[in-house]
Amino acid sequence: MEEREISQAVIRRLPRYYRYLGELLEDNVERISSNELSRRMQVTASQIRQDLNNFGGFGQQGYGYNVKYLYTEIGKILGLDIDHNMIIIGAGNLGQALANYTSFEKRGFIFKGIFDVNPRLSGVSIRGVPIRMMDELKEFINEHNIDIAVLTIPKTKAVDVANLLVDNGVRAIWNFAHTDLDLPENVIVENVHLSESLMRLSYNLSRYNKEHIE
Amino acid sequence: MEEREISQAVIRRLPRYYRYLGELLEDNVERISSNELSRRMQVTASQIRQDLNNFGGFGQQGYGYNVKYLYTEIGKILGLDIDHNMIIIGAGNLGQALANYTSFEKRGFIFKGIFDVNPRLSGVSIRGVPIRMMDELKEFINEHNIDIAVLTIPKTKAVDVANLLVDNGVRAIWNFAHTDLDLPENVIVENVHLSESLMRLSYNLSRYNKEHIE
Repeated sequence: MEEREISQAVIRRLPRYYRYLGELLEDNVERISSNELSRRMQVTASQIRQDLNNFGGFGQQGYGYNVKYLYTEIGKILGLDIDHNMIIIGAGNLGQALANYTSFEKRGFIFKGIFDVNPRLSGVSIRGVPIRMMDELKEFINEHNIDIAVLTIPKTKAVDVANLLVDNGVRAIWNFAHTDLDLPENVIVENVHLSESLMRLSYNLSRYNKEHIE
Repeated sequence: MEEREISQAVIRRLPRYYRYLGELLEDNVERISSNELSRRMQVTASQIRQDLNNFGGFGQQGYGYNVKYLYTEIGKILGLDIDHNMIIIGAGNLGQALANYTSFEKRGFIFKGIFDVNPRLSGVSIRGVPIRMMDELKEFINEHNIDIAVLTIPKTKAVDVANLLVDNGVRAIWNFAHTDLDLPENVIVENVHLSESLMRLSYNLSRYNKEHIE
């Protein structure tokens, strides 16, 4: 399957297709038309046809999409058919919240370890995984073949820790620290900047107020 | 200031400008050129000039941008000069993590209350705010003039709770539940779908592997 030319805009939409198809599967729906999917996802049917055509056309005219096939194929495109070992750096509330999402595991993100600098957390376990101290990090990464690290630490530490992770072979960082990381090109970084999301909400709220109330 | 014609793409970038300008302010930087800001933010200088020109041109040729002025004006555009009362629905790890972010408060998002259905959490306090049970929600919203609700509850409950919130006057929802909410047009919804973010990371990792390893 040729997929190099797919635009980032389409890629950004794929996880949402994957989510809706997963829900259809849970409801034992076998086939769905682009019109019905359009109604559920509130995206135009032509957008859906265009997006899914990128992957060789899973649909058959007048017959709809095979939900399971489409779900599986999009999963492969997203790399969810391959397991990745993952660690979390920062065992605060957010780190613990992420450690407790068992749904990540179902998609191939295997929670292997969680690290912190707070000695009071040493030995506390989350889903059977003990919180380890940072001095064990290097050895742990090498021994457990860790691909992905999640950063839920203050921004002042994030850059140093990210460099340490990458020096030890981590290939991708899911970054919740409130700073941008400047890492080698071959390292994948996905940022979740929560306060920026809250500011977008604030902007939309204040624009609505200006347009309707003032 | 006329701002209705600003594209969503520019709006999406504003919080990041705001973050960088805030850091400059903390470092007591008074003026910055678009070239220097470009170097720090890894965005082209022409993009910066174009983006900031949308707001009436804060820069002076050869003299750079006044950091404090620009920070304040972008803050106003984002609605951060107005306080919003905020509640969190769901006092699990994620809800508690968000309740503990004091930085939100500095930007005008005032943490007023947190709610859950688990009676064991009743009365437990986070930053001096007691976790309340859901039967107190309605009265609380009306008494405390709540604008924004944060949803950190399972997707199976999210739609009903969102409707209840909106019926009682909540104007904006910051949604961490793993489902889309179908709410009236005048309600602002900002979604943070964490597993979709993780899938984008997975896609980029697997694409990199395909291009460089296979």
